[in-house]
Amino acid sequence: MERLTFEDRNCSIARSLDVLGDWWNVLIVLECMWGSSKFDEFQRNQGISKGILSKRLKLLQEHGILSKRAVQGGTEYKLTEKGRSLHVIVVAILQWGDRWNPLPEGAPVVPVNRNSGAPVAPLELFDSEGKPVDIRNLGLLPGPGANANTRRRLEELARRQQAGAQAG
Amino acid sequence: MERLTFEDRNCSIARSLDVLGDWWNVLIVLECMWGSSKFDEFQRNQGISKGILSKRLKLLQEHGILSKRAVQGGTEYKLTEKGRSLHVIVVAILQWGDRWNPLPEGAPVVPVNRNSGAPVAPLELFDSEGKPVDIRNLGLLPGPGANANTRRRLEELARRQQAGAQAG
Repeated sequence: MERLTFEDRNCSIARSLDVLGDWWNVLIVLECMWGSSKFDEFQRNQGISKGILSKRLKLLQEHGILSKRAVQGGTEYKLTEKGRSLHVIVVAILQWGDRWNPLPEGAPVVPVNRNSGAPVAPLELFDSEGKPVDIRNLGLLPGPGANANTRRRLEELARRQQAGAQAG
Repeated sequence: MERLTFEDRNCSIARSLDVLGDWWNVLIVLECMWGSSKFDEFQRNQGISKGILSKRLKLLQEHGILSKRAVQGGTEYKLTEKGRSLHVIVVAILQWGDRWNPLPEGAPVVPVNRNSGAPVAPLELFDSEGKPVDIRNLGLLPGPGANANTRRRLEELARRQQAGAQAG
């Protein structure tokens, strides 16, 4: 990726992408969710070269997504709470893939509730009052961290949406 | 990103990442959600060079995420249904960022239900019976598309989880 830093953007998504680094990092996080914790396991299961993997593990630690500790027989990497809470993003990506880019045979892996075996339902957005929100009624308002440019763009978006030009 | 293709992996997440390309594509999709549809708007608002943007728009069309049509005064890009359904991933990334990597001033943008103005609640996983699923009771079972290696790894994961070694 021709890489800039997104850190200075007034956008939580660009800023997250900056922390997440590149797709390898998502796959390392995923590998942790599969129960891997050792360098060799990451390398073998995700087919990452040693050099890339070292750099990525270091970055993920710096960003507080992984913690590292010495254990008998080597070093163990574990997701922190910040890292574990990426599971919503990972499941969202999995569900999108199974719906829109499926293998002909069907899903390789089905996320389930381990207590009951019931499959995880497709993620849906709800508002704070429990009403469903889909892309058609999803709106954006300025938050406390909105800068002048973000405010201007949100006003423009609101005007377009009022004019009936549906976002997207 | 030192790029391999993930297309042949028995993993819906790696396969999705392959289709999504790199972070620029996520930002282009986001830009569409902000109501942009013209080359110039993408370029200006996301600060993408013309060369990168041309390649990315082409890729997103090839993958059926964007459609393109000639309109008065140029070309218009719109999210397809496949593209629009990425909004769950985009909101998941936004919420993670606002929680774990917040701006000191607070969120720049708050997603809301446009009908009521109520903010979108944090995304949560539920199973098909409506029970909440968090990372502690999230399990993985082989689906119809699981190959021998995926089955072997899932059995290993189940053994570890039974042994009380919590995934992650």
